[in-house]
Amino acid sequence: MTDLKPFLSDNAAAVHPKVWEAMRAADSPDNPYDGDALSAELDARFTALFGRECAGLWVATGTAANCLALGTMCAPHGAVVCHEEAHIEVDEGGAPGFFLHGAKLILVPGEGALLTPEGIAAAIDPIRDDVHQVQPHAVSITQASEYGRAYALPELEALGKFAATRGLGLHMDGARFANAAAGLSQDAGEAARAASGPVDSLAFGFIKNGGMGAEAVVLFDPDRAAEVRYRRKRAGHLQCKGRYLAAQVLAMLEDDLWLANAAHANAAAREVASGCGERLMHEVDANELFVRLSPAEREALRGDGFAFYDWGAEAARFVTAWNTAQEDAAALGKAIAAL
Amino acid sequence: MTDLKPFLSDNAAAVHPKVWEAMRAADSPDNPYDGDALSAELDARFTALFGRECAGLWVATGTAANCLALGTMCAPHGAVVCHEEAHIEVDEGGAPGFFLHGAKLILVPGEGALLTPEGIAAAIDPIRDDVHQVQPHAVSITQASEYGRAYALPELEALGKFAATRGLGLHMDGARFANAAAGLSQDAGEAARAASGPVDSLAFGFIKNGGMGAEAVVLFDPDRAAEVRYRRKRAGHLQCKGRYLAAQVLAMLEDDLWLANAAHANAAAREVASGCGERLMHEVDANELFVRLSPAEREALRGDGFAFYDWGAEAARFVTAWNTAQEDAAALGKAIAAL
Amino acid sequence: MTDLKPFLSDNAAAVHPKVWEAMRAADSPDNPYDGDALSAELDARFTALFGRECAGLWVATGTAANCLALGTMCAPHGAVVCHEEAHIEVDEGGAPGFFLHGAKLILVPGEGALLTPEGIAAAIDPIRDDVHQVQPHAVSITQASEYGRAYALPELEALGKFAATRGLGLHMDGARFANAAAGLSQDAGEAARAASGPVDSLAFGFIKNGGMGAEAVVLFDPDRAAEVRYRRKRAGHLQCKGRYLAAQVLAMLEDDLWLANAAHANAAAREVASGCGERLMHEVDANELFVRLSPAEREALRGDGFAFYDWGAEAARFVTAWNTAQEDAAALGKAIAAL
Amino acid sequence: MTDLKPFLSDNAAAVHPKVWEAMRAADSPDNPYDGDALSAELDARFTALFGRECAGLWVATGTAANCLALGTMCAPHGAVVCHEEAHIEVDEGGAPGFFLHGAKLILVPGEGALLTPEGIAAAIDPIRDDVHQVQPHAVSITQASEYGRAYALPELEALGKFAATRGLGLHMDGARFANAAAGLSQDAGEAARAASGPVDSLAFGFIKNGGMGAEAVVLFDPDRAAEVRYRRKRAGHLQCKGRYLAAQVLAMLEDDLWLANAAHANAAAREVASGCGERLMHEVDANELFVRLSPAEREALRGDGFAFYDWGAEAARFVTAWNTAQEDAAALGKAIAAL
Repeated sequence: MTDLKPFLSDNAAAVHPKVWEAMRAADSPDNPYDGDALSAELDARFTALFGRECAGLWVATGTAANCLALGTMCAPHGAVVCHEEAHIEVDEGGAPGFFLHGAKLILVPGEGALLTPEGIAAAIDPIRDDVHQVQPHAVSITQASEYGRAYALPELEALGKFAATRGLGLHMDGARFANAAAGLSQDAGEAARAASGPVDSLAFGFIKNGGMGAEAVVLFDPDRAAEVRYRRKRAGHLQCKGRYLAAQVLAMLEDDLWLANAAHANAAAREVASGCGERLMHEVDANELFVRLSPAEREALRGDGFAFYDWGAEAARFVTAWNTAQEDAAALGKAIAAL
Repeated sequence: MTDLKPFLSDNAAAVHPKVWEAMRAADSPDNPYDGDALSAELDARFTALFGRECAGLWVATGTAANCLALGTMCAPHGAVVCHEEAHIEVDEGGAPGFFLHGAKLILVPGEGALLTPEGIAAAIDPIRDDVHQVQPHAVSITQASEYGRAYALPELEALGKFAATRGLGLHMDGARFANAAAGLSQDAGEAARAASGPVDSLAFGFIKNGGMGAEAVVLFDPDRAAEVRYRRKRAGHLQCKGRYLAAQVLAMLEDDLWLANAAHANAAAREVASGCGERLMHEVDANELFVRLSPAEREALRGDGFAFYDWGAEAARFVTAWNTAQEDAAALGKAIAAL
Repeated sequence: MTDLKPFLSDNAAAVHPKVWEAMRAADSPDNPYDGDALSAELDARFTALFGRECAGLWVATGTAANCLALGTMCAPHGAVVCHEEAHIEVDEGGAPGFFLHGAKLILVPGEGALLTPEGIAAAIDPIRDDVHQVQPHAVSITQASEYGRAYALPELEALGKFAATRGLGLHMDGARFANAAAGLSQDAGEAARAASGPVDSLAFGFIKNGGMGAEAVVLFDPDRAAEVRYRRKRAGHLQCKGRYLAAQVLAMLEDDLWLANAAHANAAAREVASGCGERLMHEVDANELFVRLSPAEREALRGDGFAFYDWGAEAARFVTAWNTAQEDAAALGKAIAAL
Repeated sequence: MTDLKPFLSDNAAAVHPKVWEAMRAADSPDNPYDGDALSAELDARFTALFGRECAGLWVATGTAANCLALGTMCAPHGAVVCHEEAHIEVDEGGAPGFFLHGAKLILVPGEGALLTPEGIAAAIDPIRDDVHQVQPHAVSITQASEYGRAYALPELEALGKFAATRGLGLHMDGARFANAAAGLSQDAGEAARAASGPVDSLAFGFIKNGGMGAEAVVLFDPDRAAEVRYRRKRAGHLQCKGRYLAAQVLAMLEDDLWLANAAHANAAAREVASGCGERLMHEVDANELFVRLSPAEREALRGDGFAFYDWGAEAARFVTAWNTAQEDAAALGKAIAAL
């Protein structure tokens, strides 16, 4: 596959050299599980980044990160409100049903796979307050969204206010949190705060952004951390050589590598977007592009060596990554513009 | 901790250089999840090793490996029979209850944390065949056992026959399978077959034996693999850069590294054992030693720089690893002998 | 409430005298749980009624009946396809998520709350056959539907064929099965067979039709009965004085009381319908009517002593029962016609 | 079976005439589920009886009552401590695993199937406070115990203090609560308070004591009632004609019928006990007797028309009920004495 110009996904990209370096440095023995010195740093590092107290726990996948966080917010007899195309609904193999012991997902439509207070209200207001109907306990939003759109801070604040008013927890699936953040500010703290707003928990993704197998569950109510630690173990997600996961996370935080990698991917996406014009189905806030392309046009692009997924019958999805070559992005933009 | 002579556990040991090498070689892009070329090799490699058809799936922890395998053998309303000190009962944070949706563990005593058909029968024969009592669906044994004992092939065959007669699945927790196998033969295939006998599934551990974060679920009924794949995803255990896990497993299988590493650890354990005499609480079939030592004796050993866990008030546990220095083992054996 | 002409629901109607009689007759001692002579009759009685071998188990609620049956057809990692307004989705407090250990419901739209092979196919064909997406394992239909519509035999056969082709189990929520059946034939066996078609399991409702607290899970694959018995106990649904539930079911089957009661309710519904003309939102196949009525019209009817639920802002739902007075039904029909 | 002198169990006895009467009186229509006037009385009636604020919810079985109450006290990743022969461990088909989503039972031995603070401490003190081990969240005791023993108030207070100190909820399985209470006082309020002590929740059994199919979950923290109501519906235990269950419970509370029925059964048990002498394996605090009897002796008794269960190879269990004939009890006592 190496000769292709790869825009299939960021989820299988190579691991960043600094992440490798940090993992190798973790080879010297330390306590198992999360008793090591590296894991012990996470709470403080995330607290410093977000400027409010939080706990940070490593876990191997975004699916686990989302579900462990949501498990603290939604009882088995409750429901999580999410977009009808949210990853937790469409692409996690029913993991929320498993981790939340049969809790329900309440699906909400919304442009760009973004939620609004109005959209959520329209979905949950008809739910009668009686035991025959599953009551919403939490809301899960995705930053950047499944269509590469990012919530800006005022939108997050409106959602946070709505959730608080309704007594709902607010979780953020941040598989591409870095890409959303990088679109909002070039200062890491500011970007992190703007992209997370007042959420109660965040699945902070690193794997698509240069990591290997470590995401972080960030809990802005650190009192929830104890429960998540029990649930992480119970789900078989407490790795005994956890220091290698902590090392990955710390490497991504060090010198704001997470933001730099995401900014690179976003720049590549903008480069591609510059050739797409009216073909773009959604604004490009992060590193994903959804582009109207006929079958023949897609075939032509593939003939030129571009790899990407179809998106239905008349469109394609392109994803850039931390290591997308600038010339590949430029070539793709030009090739689309020339169709 | 680096100046200590470490006998705490093998679960936090460094990663073997060949595993590092294989992981680095996996850095070139490939399909995500388990769609890559390395993951695709696993079924054939395990089939060749065990000499009978099987499926092999990577997963990040032994807890997940055990529970995913057991999930195919025991319905939520059933029970898994295991030793009362089995890891799945004592040390996995209730993971079987989670993965098996509330199935029960039926606990059986037994010398050396080993099970026998008689011991199992004594536990399950009194269970009335009616719906008020949870019926056994499967048996889980540990190889090597929690006390470092190994089942020999005839014992496994007796257990297999018993399980088949009773209609029970037979699972093996092989967190230290390699150590048990290395004690049985120096030929990899023969060792693997002798140590697994007729089990239906095996959680084949690599992490304690030089890996980083990859074990294998080996299913000797490959028809079960599809269900396990769905369950693995649902449990958040399908890593998108799965090729790095496959690489670890393949590196361990390559040139029988798994057996060589285990043989090294076992040799170190025997070296220590040679100084223990009557102090040994259990025969040493693998890489764990349980040694009667008074508090004062343990303090003396710690004063000499040996790191290990207490085992109750009057004993200690020592664990050797793939990288235990020969001189450290010899020193420990001598120090104990000299007490 | 006794002075009202009650069209609120059939779910709180009085218990039929013959049911009372049978329960009283069950007062003499017998074996507990389902070991009594009455419970032992159920399999044969349902087999005779449906003309194909089946097992019949009592259970106290339709929710439990549906979920116990579905539990044999859908693994925790699978999904049940149902109408988007199905009772199991909308009104059972998330019970399917509980009993099926987190399995998902796939929601399908459809006129009259009826499903068709085409409608189901449209919902499930886009599901990719990979582990990221929850796969359908079963279909659940409701007879009569949430809008009082009944499937005729050819429609059931088409659904059965579709389900078989796709490898899906086919379950029927028959909370008002009797009412659907009574609309299809006046011969009990013929009605039962026509209304159930080739389904694999049926939650046969008696409570809304004159019973007190006993429905039946009818399993047309009797091999599934053992599992359901274990699950029933595990869900706390194995009552120790089960003979009183068996007595209710047998009383309803005796002399086809179930069909007679339903025919009465249906006739009352037709009587009401005769006054509704164009106001009817759905054909009246059973004992429920959905009638377009303005707020003022509804107020007028209530002023006349009719009790019923609003159905949204511009309609009302009327339900007749086994004991609806003929004159009340006639009065309601006339009152609506006179609006 | 009617000619036998029945000492098999109280769980299949006839329904008390006053319960029948109350059920018949409930036949007039009312709101479905627990929206009826009878169900609405329960909280106040139990509050009056126990002299402290509580909520009372009907449910059809003791298994469901226990599990619904425990579900508010023990998270899925926690454990409930109970006696190793407790009904929830031995005879409920794994229901706690189902309702508590995989939570564990920690089993404690104890004379007479009674727990003590010391016994519980011995079981839980060795549990390490780390995520690898399932932590206790609640204690469940049985009143009267599986061997017909009753906790006196000081014993309950000691258990309550212990539980509070350890941060554990305290639940009471009161399948035969009435029998335990009747042994403590002849004043209903005093008996109820003495037998329940400071427990947080009680599964108050009525079925074995003259009811048909209604027990009560009594929650002394009424704030938990809302959660239990959702869970009850979700478990398929919210019957639509709930008024017939409420009627049963109210009939049992009316004029202290529950206490009178239990006192009758207890007196019969004492009558039997008077003939047993040294044969008694446990003191008789309620309505169960465990009597050492050889196979030949048991055969002789059966020859005389007494029906009862064997209890292992050398003993028998006799249970009296609200309707045990005085002459049957006397005859049994004499027959045993004469052996």
